[in-house]
Amino acid sequence: MSVCGDYNPTIVTKVERPPRNIIDEFKNLSTPNVSDALERNRVNGVVENLRPMVSGVRIAGPAITVRYVPLSPGEEGTKEDIGDYLFEIAQQGDVIVIDNGGVTTYTCWGDILTFTAVKLGIAGTVIDGMFRDYDNILKMRYPIFARGTIPRTGKDRLQIDGVNVAVEVGGILVRPGDIILGDDTGVLRIPKEKAADILKDAKQVEEAERMIIDSVSSGLTLREARQKYRYFQLQRATR
Amino acid sequence: MSVCGDYNPTIVTKVERPPRNIIDEFKNLSTPNVSDALERNRVNGVVENLRPMVSGVRIAGPAITVRYVPLSPGEEGTKEDIGDYLFEIAQQGDVIVIDNGGVTTYTCWGDILTFTAVKLGIAGTVIDGMFRDYDNILKMRYPIFARGTIPRTGKDRLQIDGVNVAVEVGGILVRPGDIILGDDTGVLRIPKEKAADILKDAKQVEEAERMIIDSVSSGLTLREARQKYRYFQLQRATR
Amino acid sequence: MSVCGDYNPTIVTKVERPPRNIIDEFKNLSTPNVSDALERNRVNGVVENLRPMVSGVRIAGPAITVRYVPLSPGEEGTKEDIGDYLFEIAQQGDVIVIDNGGVTTYTCWGDILTFTAVKLGIAGTVIDGMFRDYDNILKMRYPIFARGTIPRTGKDRLQIDGVNVAVEVGGILVRPGDIILGDDTGVLRIPKEKAADILKDAKQVEEAERMIIDSVSSGLTLREARQKYRYFQLQRATR
Repeated sequence: MSVCGDYNPTIVTKVERPPRNIIDEFKNLSTPNVSDALERNRVNGVVENLRPMVSGVRIAGPAITVRYVPLSPGEEGTKEDIGDYLFEIAQQGDVIVIDNGGVTTYTCWGDILTFTAVKLGIAGTVIDGMFRDYDNILKMRYPIFARGTIPRTGKDRLQIDGVNVAVEVGGILVRPGDIILGDDTGVLRIPKEKAADILKDAKQVEEAERMIIDSVSSGLTLREARQKYRYFQLQRATR
Repeated sequence: MSVCGDYNPTIVTKVERPPRNIIDEFKNLSTPNVSDALERNRVNGVVENLRPMVSGVRIAGPAITVRYVPLSPGEEGTKEDIGDYLFEIAQQGDVIVIDNGGVTTYTCWGDILTFTAVKLGIAGTVIDGMFRDYDNILKMRYPIFARGTIPRTGKDRLQIDGVNVAVEVGGILVRPGDIILGDDTGVLRIPKEKAADILKDAKQVEEAERMIIDSVSSGLTLREARQKYRYFQLQRATR
Repeated sequence: MSVCGDYNPTIVTKVERPPRNIIDEFKNLSTPNVSDALERNRVNGVVENLRPMVSGVRIAGPAITVRYVPLSPGEEGTKEDIGDYLFEIAQQGDVIVIDNGGVTTYTCWGDILTFTAVKLGIAGTVIDGMFRDYDNILKMRYPIFARGTIPRTGKDRLQIDGVNVAVEVGGILVRPGDIILGDDTGVLRIPKEKAADILKDAKQVEEAERMIIDSVSSGLTLREARQKYRYFQLQRATR
């Protein structure tokens, strides 16, 4: 962390991403089904306290991370933000994950960043904090998960502590390249090393849940359908 | 309340419901007008801290209740939830009312329960807690009033303490068969014994408010229109 | 403030409003751009903790203010509210600003007031508190910024302490005639004496931000475009 006028952020440009086909399969799964699969694998991945701010969108992609910290007295002012690095480090389909420490009094994202992200094919942004220019972002239907909106700028209030370092958002550790999954229910982080196992389990959960709904459609009671497909065991560790 | 591995919930299957014609008349009234009528009858019925999660829907129906409590160490895991009882106890037009103690870290409702509820003709669900599968529930336009959404399951975190017992949601006692009214403004509970009186008063409030709006349309000032229809007395007890 | 049955509110009917052409120009600007201009002028104007309750609307207009205070034991009940004064004091395009002390347990605005406000051509309402009749207000697409909705009336709970006095909403002082700007991101107050300076600066901010987006469209990186238009200095005082 920089102190007293030093601005010396850690910038990591190389990110190891999971295979694209795994990410694409996650995109067809809901956060609840994948959350159950995370539990099967004894991984905590539910990001808390962030809301889906654009209804009806769904994202899955590798995390590009940034950690912001406040300026201290004596520091010189904001010189750059994640936008200055996007052209170098972000690829199509990435998800920007911003740790602004849950600050709700000023923003760290707006429409210039959104316009740039859309141009680069970035999938969406997850912010432990606030953003602005909500009207324009709603028009673009750009996926954002955040604490809320406020007009006040983060300029001269925040500075970059690190890009593509491990960050914490909504109580969850996110490392660059971890898969971020978001939908109307919320946001998950899937550790990249376990992505294949979690995908397999999530597909089993989804399949079982679909069978339960089909069974109720066909005339079983919900109790019968659940027993048939072991509903209350779906989230339990099998490994 | 069950302790240390005992799972012995209180299940009541028989619910005394108010007459259907009374419920149907409530469905045409707004929660604000009925809230004023509750005050006239010195009844507190405003459920606090729950949000209407599907915009533009309105529900009125008798409550089917469930109280969940957390699992304790030594307990064996969730064996059933309200869904297992729906086929036995719920009738078309009922409202499911769930007391999950205001828990925001895991859910107690999702799309399988919603699909089942829709199949059974259930009117909606009121949850002092969270739910998941919001995207699917929005598509079904199934009315839910809750604290919010999160992907994490309640399975192996909660258990039934009672079905069709008295519960507390948003600071209000709800007994099975009490009428639940919900719209974009919020949720009310109307005690079944007083439903007829409250309905009568609510219709008077609605009529007076309509006359005030008509009078302003016709050229009176709001001050004049309110004095004519005793606006500031509408919520006062007359019995 | 009135005590023990005294009801003696301060009512000011004459409000000095900024020129209409200045207000109309603000209506084309976003709260983020104007927020940056407020900072340039060393003015704090960001109203916190109120949410835009009707999506996709934008307001700019001079404030007509009301301060409510709770009834105390011994007081006689609500005799009037802001609606009783609207016909005398509000003009087309005004914004009603209500300081209800952030109370979330009862309302101070509803559909009769909204209907009357629409009839009078009032632009919108900002409430540090709650409102009701959200369904009807959504249908009218009347702009409201507030803490949320609840059915419970404020009648016999609140009384007027002052109309067109200085009030506090969301941590910001608002005086009658100050310009209120609201959009999907939030609400600002622009002090009337500084409106012309702030407007000029906000247009510069908007112009610079548009140039940055155009430059990224034309192939510059965001870093290059920002340096060209001095992005990180836009909010800094120049006077």
